[in-house]
Amino acid sequence: MLFEFQNPTRLIFGAGVLKRLGKLTRAHGKRAMIVTGGGSIKRNGTYDRAIASLGAAGVTHVECTGVEPNPRITTVLHGAQMARDEKCDVIIALGGGSVMDAAKVMAAAVYYDGDPWDMIYHGQAAPHVPTRALPLITVPTLAATGSEMNAGAVITNEKTTVKSYVIADVMYPRVALVDPELTLTVPKDQTAYGVCDLITHVTESYFNGQDGTPLQDRFAEGVILTAMEWGPKAVANGNDLEARAQVQWASVVALNGWVQAGVEGGYPVHMIEHVISAHHDIAHGAGLAIVNPAWMRFAAKHRPARFVQFAQRIFGLQPKHAEDMECALSGIDKFEAFLRAIGCPTKLSEMKIGDALLQRYAQDTLRVTPDEKGRLPARPPMNEKDIVEILRSAL
Amino acid sequence: MLFEFQNPTRLIFGAGVLKRLGKLTRAHGKRAMIVTGGGSIKRNGTYDRAIASLGAAGVTHVECTGVEPNPRITTVLHGAQMARDEKCDVIIALGGGSVMDAAKVMAAAVYYDGDPWDMIYHGQAAPHVPTRALPLITVPTLAATGSEMNAGAVITNEKTTVKSYVIADVMYPRVALVDPELTLTVPKDQTAYGVCDLITHVTESYFNGQDGTPLQDRFAEGVILTAMEWGPKAVANGNDLEARAQVQWASVVALNGWVQAGVEGGYPVHMIEHVISAHHDIAHGAGLAIVNPAWMRFAAKHRPARFVQFAQRIFGLQPKHAEDMECALSGIDKFEAFLRAIGCPTKLSEMKIGDALLQRYAQDTLRVTPDEKGRLPARPPMNEKDIVEILRSAL
Repeated sequence: MLFEFQNPTRLIFGAGVLKRLGKLTRAHGKRAMIVTGGGSIKRNGTYDRAIASLGAAGVTHVECTGVEPNPRITTVLHGAQMARDEKCDVIIALGGGSVMDAAKVMAAAVYYDGDPWDMIYHGQAAPHVPTRALPLITVPTLAATGSEMNAGAVITNEKTTVKSYVIADVMYPRVALVDPELTLTVPKDQTAYGVCDLITHVTESYFNGQDGTPLQDRFAEGVILTAMEWGPKAVANGNDLEARAQVQWASVVALNGWVQAGVEGGYPVHMIEHVISAHHDIAHGAGLAIVNPAWMRFAAKHRPARFVQFAQRIFGLQPKHAEDMECALSGIDKFEAFLRAIGCPTKLSEMKIGDALLQRYAQDTLRVTPDEKGRLPARPPMNEKDIVEILRSAL
Repeated sequence: MLFEFQNPTRLIFGAGVLKRLGKLTRAHGKRAMIVTGGGSIKRNGTYDRAIASLGAAGVTHVECTGVEPNPRITTVLHGAQMARDEKCDVIIALGGGSVMDAAKVMAAAVYYDGDPWDMIYHGQAAPHVPTRALPLITVPTLAATGSEMNAGAVITNEKTTVKSYVIADVMYPRVALVDPELTLTVPKDQTAYGVCDLITHVTESYFNGQDGTPLQDRFAEGVILTAMEWGPKAVANGNDLEARAQVQWASVVALNGWVQAGVEGGYPVHMIEHVISAHHDIAHGAGLAIVNPAWMRFAAKHRPARFVQFAQRIFGLQPKHAEDMECALSGIDKFEAFLRAIGCPTKLSEMKIGDALLQRYAQDTLRVTPDEKGRLPARPPMNEKDIVEILRSAL
């Protein structure tokens, strides 16, 4: 292990903490741009409570609303322009992963006169690395992405249908205000997709990271076991605040770097899914539920012992030996069954996606951040044929 | 769960990272005070390598050496005076937990004209909360305390024989430079005490924290299992760099707040041990190995289910029911046997400590940070009689 870790975000977690938004924001600015998505936060009162808290603390605001589920670079451009025009000195992201991701890139784009797409990794072109950003406060309304406490964002270029990411230290939120009460009204399907999303965050590093990280393995398994224990309760009864809190805490930890520190590794399932959702605008968590088990069956052939460990520690299966492929595949079957049980799709056909564009998906996936041989970084690295094979098995 | 978490320290981990000390220090200052303990870093070349790295980066230095195993407040005063006199603008702690703890309080004492003991919690007196400190870089030479990546320090007042702590945000190190190579020469006994120390850091919150923290439970169990897997290898072969690295990573995580976030709870085993080592100047990790199993047997009576979980998840024992005391006690026996197997003492008599002062230890323990009823905060809270009972069982 040879690595660096630093995450400066101040996390404030617990039911009811939304009421602290105003004072916390005031410590970073006087005029806020609130970034929001659709109308659910207006209907359930969250938005009004946020505004009231800001007003009571003497913070004025403008709203940048309408961020899409797969947020677009034109939306980022629009938001950055609004923040400049309105002379905002702090940005609040009030919504799900899309809203938080868009808000992060807006915060950086305020200080960048070029095309904000320059900041997003895409192909061989060297991106512009953001070096400055407005202070950002994240208030997630969905337990899923972990975006509230990390420095990453995923943005779609609707012209080129490329969905890709940026990671930059200046995009760490100053404060992540995580209030599980805000997730009580999330519908069953979105709750399930969130559970899948958070589990996939840790399976990526668990299966693709370097060898010799036993503590991080335990942490990843802890996140998965907790999500599998409490996720179904949150899906079954959306008003179960305890279940909502446990799932949300797991979602924060799943991608705030604690599990990934020293592990590294690619995010092949995410990279493939990004292409699917860029083409078909499906929910990210649903796409992951389809791609992940299919990818796992492919990867298990190359690294059976690791998948045996997963089967053993997550599902209590007993392998006959350290590379028992039958045990490894049983673990993946059980994982897929879990995803189905909470209501996730696990086949492309369930999303009405056929085999017409499989090669195109694979080619698009390989365009984003290929390794030196043009392959998708992962264990094992994958070429176009591999990705097509995985997606075909998920039809 | 209702909590806050923020740890701004930049962690740089891996064999060989010591060579980066100079440049990293230069980013925070031009003139460093290096705080050190005994002579081992001089004998094994670590000190010379550190100095060479500083010199190459244009950082001048003075050395504040001789920090004791249980660092004293007079040593802190001396170091703070030296830093002021020598106009140092950055402090480097190069040593074990004692050195790092002393350096932290020195860094804060530089900006405090009063008695630095005012900063340490002791009894009812309101301490002076440090609000400013010189930038600090920690370079641990021992895997044990986790002090390298947190904001706490433990200091002894040799006049009053009180050993107590301070936690203040300004004492977070700017950089924790964690190089497992520096621990290769740590002798077997100190290696074992370090393993015990790090495990005890997580057992404290695991057994004394609030209910309803399943993810943190898994994290704590992950630290314990990793330390129990790799600790014996590091004890058996000090030159096993892989084992040294795994143990040291576990020691960082055991007390950097990741396991404790949202859990809270007292540190009763530490509080009792501090008194023992303040009176008898024994190694902290050795004292913990004696107090922890004795305390666990006491606490298990009040919270059997939690100790059953420990027995089950750490040692694979199968309870007959959720509160199976026999299973709970077997788990504690196995934990004590593990400590003995790596070479830790588990009885006071092994340290030549008798029963003459048991009441005094209990009274001293209760003087530091008692609850509103004068008890030691823990699950269950303890009075003088309880503490005497625990220590008597450890004779």
